Amino acid sequence: MKAFNDLADFTNDEIQALLELANRLDAHPEPHALQGKVLSLLFLSPSLRTLASFQAAMVRLGGGSFVISPDMSIHGLETRPGIVMDGAAAEHIREAVPVIASYGDAIGIRAFAERKSLEADMAETEFRALTDLIDTPYINMESAMGHPCQNLADWKTLDDLGVPANGGKFVLSWAYHPRALPLAVPSSTLRMAAQRGMDVTVLRPEGFELPDAIMQQARDAAEASGGSVRETEDRREAMQDAQVIYAKSWSSTQCYGDRLGDEKLRNELIDWCVDEPWFENAQDDCRFMHCLPVRRGVVVSEPVLDGPRSVVIHEARNRMLAQMAVLHQMLGGQS
Amino acid sequence: MKAFNDLADFTNDEIQALLELANRLDAHPEPHALQGKVLSLLFLSPSLRTLASFQAAMVRLGGGSFVISPDMSIHGLETRPGIVMDGAAAEHIREAVPVIASYGDAIGIRAFAERKSLEADMAETEFRALTDLIDTPYINMESAMGHPCQNLADWKTLDDLGVPANGGKFVLSWAYHPRALPLAVPSSTLRMAAQRGMDVTVLRPEGFELPDAIMQQARDAAEASGGSVRETEDRREAMQDAQVIYAKSWSSTQCYGDRLGDEKLRNELIDWCVDEPWFENAQDDCRFMHCLPVRRGVVVSEPVLDGPRSVVIHEARNRMLAQMAVLHQMLGGQS
Amino acid sequence: MKAFNDLADFTNDEIQALLELANRLDAHPEPHALQGKVLSLLFLSPSLRTLASFQAAMVRLGGGSFVISPDMSIHGLETRPGIVMDGAAAEHIREAVPVIASYGDAIGIRAFAERKSLEADMAETEFRALTDLIDTPYINMESAMGHPCQNLADWKTLDDLGVPANGGKFVLSWAYHPRALPLAVPSSTLRMAAQRGMDVTVLRPEGFELPDAIMQQARDAAEASGGSVRETEDRREAMQDAQVIYAKSWSSTQCYGDRLGDEKLRNELIDWCVDEPWFENAQDDCRFMHCLPVRRGVVVSEPVLDGPRSVVIHEARNRMLAQMAVLHQMLGGQS
Repeated sequence: MKAFNDLADFTNDEIQALLELANRLDAHPEPHALQGKVLSLLFLSPSLRTLASFQAAMVRLGGGSFVISPDMSIHGLETRPGIVMDGAAAEHIREAVPVIASYGDAIGIRAFAERKSLEADMAETEFRALTDLIDTPYINMESAMGHPCQNLADWKTLDDLGVPANGGKFVLSWAYHPRALPLAVPSSTLRMAAQRGMDVTVLRPEGFELPDAIMQQARDAAEASGGSVRETEDRREAMQDAQVIYAKSWSSTQCYGDRLGDEKLRNELIDWCVDEPWFENAQDDCRFMHCLPVRRGVVVSEPVLDGPRSVVIHEARNRMLAQMAVLHQMLGGQS
Repeated sequence: MKAFNDLADFTNDEIQALLELANRLDAHPEPHALQGKVLSLLFLSPSLRTLASFQAAMVRLGGGSFVISPDMSIHGLETRPGIVMDGAAAEHIREAVPVIASYGDAIGIRAFAERKSLEADMAETEFRALTDLIDTPYINMESAMGHPCQNLADWKTLDDLGVPANGGKFVLSWAYHPRALPLAVPSSTLRMAAQRGMDVTVLRPEGFELPDAIMQQARDAAEASGGSVRETEDRREAMQDAQVIYAKSWSSTQCYGDRLGDEKLRNELIDWCVDEPWFENAQDDCRFMHCLPVRRGVVVSEPVLDGPRSVVIHEARNRMLAQMAVLHQMLGGQS
Repeated sequence: MKAFNDLADFTNDEIQALLELANRLDAHPEPHALQGKVLSLLFLSPSLRTLASFQAAMVRLGGGSFVISPDMSIHGLETRPGIVMDGAAAEHIREAVPVIASYGDAIGIRAFAERKSLEADMAETEFRALTDLIDTPYINMESAMGHPCQNLADWKTLDDLGVPANGGKFVLSWAYHPRALPLAVPSSTLRMAAQRGMDVTVLRPEGFELPDAIMQQARDAAEASGGSVRETEDRREAMQDAQVIYAKSWSSTQCYGDRLGDEKLRNELIDWCVDEPWFENAQDDCRFMHCLPVRRGVVVSEPVLDGPRSVVIHEARNRMLAQMAVLHQMLGGQS
């Protein structure tokens, strides 16, 4: 495996094999599998779960990792191409990234969307500028539009919960949040759910439609896997017989990169906080999923988050297990 | 071992067994004992020795660790219960702590006293709010009133020095410091020395008495172990035949949480700097102990700190060895 | 090996043995060699490559490390001797360094020049104040005047490139940079190249001569190894038949510690940016070396840095391999 960048690069059989490996490593630890192997971790954006779970994953397999973030370089890392570096930054990513990569057997990279241009973010301009610099196997630890480690963990969680791949009813819902957040999780979660073969509903207010190209990719994936994709702003319609609601806030795509325009839209939508009444016509055991971090009382009510519907801690632990499987395959762990 | 939270949770025989294990691991390393095991380290308060010694301890036993502090989350971690999270913090400890714990086989947690209410700090309100969130075995890396890792290391240091458990004369002395510091070290050190069976004198100026409940716990422990506890503000009386003086600054308990009141009291007490004349009527080889960090020329004079009485580096190294023993027992290291 | 502080402490045969070990560890990993061994890493100055490569090196050999920097202590570390610590800093290096060292089997220390007095920096006053505090084997991770890990990696790079030890033509060139930088890399690189036996030219503008004592050490080393050392400010003369140009900016030694005086001198020298025309009379395959971080378009032009002459990433990866050899010898790795 040269890259773990997008679940769509893998067949469903390959994903199933990864998840079987994740389960096996959970049940039967392999503390020598990656002895002496190194994972480089480059965080150009903040992290808690990803930071912790990748370090833990490498230790569990007998290897190790190191973490680099721009504040460790003198005055940060320059990213602009072709610039005369007479300002603050003392180092350019064109040196820093290949060097960091050269110390590891694989590298994990996180770089959130710049959110200036939807076109540039959809094209993964920034993330590709980083991965183009290296030959080392790499893992996308969240880019402008992708978060495959989260997606693989969530797929595993759906398996663990017994939500059927075909016929499972999955609602991806926008939620209120005081800030405009990236599209990476909703876009890649939608595509994951469609690829898994579920009947997926995107529930979002006007102005917060996911990009057309993402919707189309999801529809194509659903067609191939026997699932379906639809979108609505009608909560009741969306939640009918739902087995899972996956909540996430994201930026307005109508006002992408326009903070004030986005704020104006979202400030009308503070009632988009997932609460028990949302589940009225869902299946009785409908679950609540979220990638975390989550704002209590804002994105989701405390009773839902602390109640039996919530599987957010289970999801988060699956991050470590899913990544262990990816690392085991990528770094050639012996079984 | 499900928790390492307080030496008082262990019999003296159990403590002795831990210290024998610490000595054995020092003399006969077990670099495979915890292969593939992970210790999560959550620092809600700053650290140097604890941070370094726990990481080193896990490596020496063949495992590993990862470190999380609130500045790694976006805008810090919210701790208040029942709050609508529409402010800066993007994540609540109710998610962060269980998630971090779920990546490890055990978790170490540090959270200093809030020092608003002595009652709340005595009840360990904040620390319990954290440990109540998890089922994982945990280690108290310093809470409002406890620092069991320091206590175990200090017990080992007393053993190493040949200070007798019964009959050993131990002085815990307040010292001047420009800031009001937590009660965790003095309170738990007093209880440790009493539990070990020594004759303990608390030497402190008026206004800096340790809390009644702590004094009573220490007296009860001394009674059970054949030791004794008394307190005085008379330096000469306290130091008579002393074998060990353990210096530490702490907040006024008379003015707890009242910065100005505390300052007014302590500013009269800058002569509480442990210096050679203090040792006039102590035993000749009376030792100086301190948990570090220590302010030179403020808490203790340079000649004492740099002289043969001082065992502070020995104490600090014992932190690592004591913690290795705890980790070995807690994580099921094979001998 | 009790210290890795200066290549001049080793014979050329000993260095060759270290580099053979580095090559062997690259070709034939030894992921159990340092199982359970700990490297303490103390960074009193910022780092990216050193930070990453030492952590990676320890993992590759089966051990581990921990990182301490002053911001992990409360309000930083005090370094001044004999001071009454009633200010911000809560801990002195006199405790912090021995404690940190006591947790490791070896310690790496980085402390850049203070650049107040050339005499003090030449005498390594600050670095010696740190290493005098410990008995643990130590590695110089860059001091006022030395950077032996960089030097060993560069020696390996010269070997890898087939640049002959005797007769190889090596140019160490000053380059423009907006800030006054330490002398550690140029001084120790000059001495390394001379010790290796090459014909070394120091190319630098007036006011930026390297210290006399350094030049003399280099001449002595060259005499012993069959090499030569000269200096010039004439670019064309320096580059004649050059096989390697090693670029680096450094402070004016004429105005050492005088920021304004240094600025006045360097601001006339922005044309000291290594560019393709510099190579006109060099050997066709003349290589460009730099220790990184490097400012693009300032120290070196983008075409040179991104072109086939540049070996900067190769150099940086050799940091890890060279350090693995040092650690393997220092920590008694079994072969």
